Amino acid sequence: MSSSKLQLVKPPALRAGDTVGIVAPASNIKRADLDAGCDALRQAGYKPCYFDSILDQDLYFAGSADRRARELEEMFVRQDIRAIICARGGYGANYLLRELDLEKIRTHPKIFVGYSDITTLLTHFTGADGFVTFHGPMAAKDWAHENGVELESWQAALSQTTPWDVPAEAIVGLVEGEAEGVLYGGCLSILVASLGTPYEIDTTGTILFLEDLGAKPYQIDRMLMQLKLAGKFDAVRGIVFGEMLDCVQTTNQGYTLPDVVNRIVGELGVPVAFGVKSGHVTSGNITLPFGVRAKLSVRAQRLVLRILESAVQI
Amino acid sequence: MSSSKLQLVKPPALRAGDTVGIVAPASNIKRADLDAGCDALRQAGYKPCYFDSILDQDLYFAGSADRRARELEEMFVRQDIRAIICARGGYGANYLLRELDLEKIRTHPKIFVGYSDITTLLTHFTGADGFVTFHGPMAAKDWAHENGVELESWQAALSQTTPWDVPAEAIVGLVEGEAEGVLYGGCLSILVASLGTPYEIDTTGTILFLEDLGAKPYQIDRMLMQLKLAGKFDAVRGIVFGEMLDCVQTTNQGYTLPDVVNRIVGELGVPVAFGVKSGHVTSGNITLPFGVRAKLSVRAQRLVLRILESAVQI
Repeated sequence: MSSSKLQLVKPPALRAGDTVGIVAPASNIKRADLDAGCDALRQAGYKPCYFDSILDQDLYFAGSADRRARELEEMFVRQDIRAIICARGGYGANYLLRELDLEKIRTHPKIFVGYSDITTLLTHFTGADGFVTFHGPMAAKDWAHENGVELESWQAALSQTTPWDVPAEAIVGLVEGEAEGVLYGGCLSILVASLGTPYEIDTTGTILFLEDLGAKPYQIDRMLMQLKLAGKFDAVRGIVFGEMLDCVQTTNQGYTLPDVVNRIVGELGVPVAFGVKSGHVTSGNITLPFGVRAKLSVRAQRLVLRILESAVQI
Repeated sequence: MSSSKLQLVKPPALRAGDTVGIVAPASNIKRADLDAGCDALRQAGYKPCYFDSILDQDLYFAGSADRRARELEEMFVRQDIRAIICARGGYGANYLLRELDLEKIRTHPKIFVGYSDITTLLTHFTGADGFVTFHGPMAAKDWAHENGVELESWQAALSQTTPWDVPAEAIVGLVEGEAEGVLYGGCLSILVASLGTPYEIDTTGTILFLEDLGAKPYQIDRMLMQLKLAGKFDAVRGIVFGEMLDCVQTTNQGYTLPDVVNRIVGELGVPVAFGVKSGHVTSGNITLPFGVRAKLSVRAQRLVLRILESAVQI
């Protein structure tokens, strides 16, 4: 995410009536969840479509790495598919890194949405291949549940060309300040899993979004420390945490997760806050565009994350 | 662990009546556990000693990083201390990497024993500083519990100068074969946490020992895949897994952990087996010397891990 990458390719905007392709690049999915998600997407005005092999299972994967890679490439290449929405995360997107024909994908930039394990692909596509991707609701997860999707950010991120403010609530402002950078990040466990590999994330110049599910404070501490020791905080411009769902100790230890986080990133000299509910959230999953310029302002327990440029082209 | 490091410095052997220093470089400990461990060490013929500050607590740490680093350095430097045994792991040894005066430690090589989070220090001392370390029972953990320590390997590793076979049982031999290399490794989560940092493990030419506690098969899969993508299996000579305590799915999914592991390391062309109970184990924690030549033989579900050279000097 060096400054030379500030102008990334933007995929075509999503419009009412568009066909959206559902893919499963990671764990296997259940038909009932897929059906429920497709119903909701239809109600929202889209035409969901998928390949029958999406229901394949191999261990905890949605079929072989080859199947998953070919499905994804095909959805990128097909002219009738306007956007690609992942069915779910789970585990296994890392197997696709060596399998994917990146030339096929790069030459057909398209809206690509997911989170959790899909962070692997979001950061890879936006980082290495240079197109904007989207951290947001998945078809057989958030779309399959009532109130699973925060629709205003979905619309703004995927269809709007003017600046907009990301919804934020229940804010913990750790470090006040204001900064501009390229929005980037995802699931902390998955970002850390890129370190030391050829697919290691580049956080230079970013407003880094970090979220996770069911990790204890000491595990969050360990992951943040690995990022720190790896130099990944050296050139960030700001840090925003998500809901951090179930990332608490089971017993009251007299400290909070923000306390733990503050010790590690509190002295970087950049604004830090909690409270953008994208990814693993209880409800209302917010859509965030990765690879676009954003401005983070943290003041008196108030957070504003403004998306400064369009993530799509009309 | 390049071939130039094959001849590491060996610490002085442990003898009956020796004074052993107990340290807590990671998480905080309970006095009752420390007392029980010291009793057992006395019964085994040693004189345990510790600084009172070992009982300090700061979040989940045994006091500040400064306290923990100074305690460790002091135990290395003091002439009356013959060996250093960690009280427990938990989390926090990573904070010591930048804090420690390595010159002090390197110039006073000593028996240093631990596992779990202590893997950070074992691999760092053996890899970067060139002295043999020991993956084995800790004072306020295994020593504090009946049958917590496997005494034959403790004696052999810390006091013996002739080759010996590591006790092995309940073997799953995944890939048959025979290989020589430098024994190295530890807790998988902690080895992975070194990737991308200045303290990244070097696995070249090693018989890699891997163990963990309470990680699900897909999490083991992800960690092994990170090691693989980081090239850490490219030049290993063999792989031995520990007991992998509680590393199963809660529901029966029709596959086993060895199945999962075999998919990732089964085609490396090096011997692979499960069954050396060192580290997180139900009982009888085995002591393994890291940094010495060892020979791994896997044949017909039988594993022999022979330590080929003395880990200590008499």
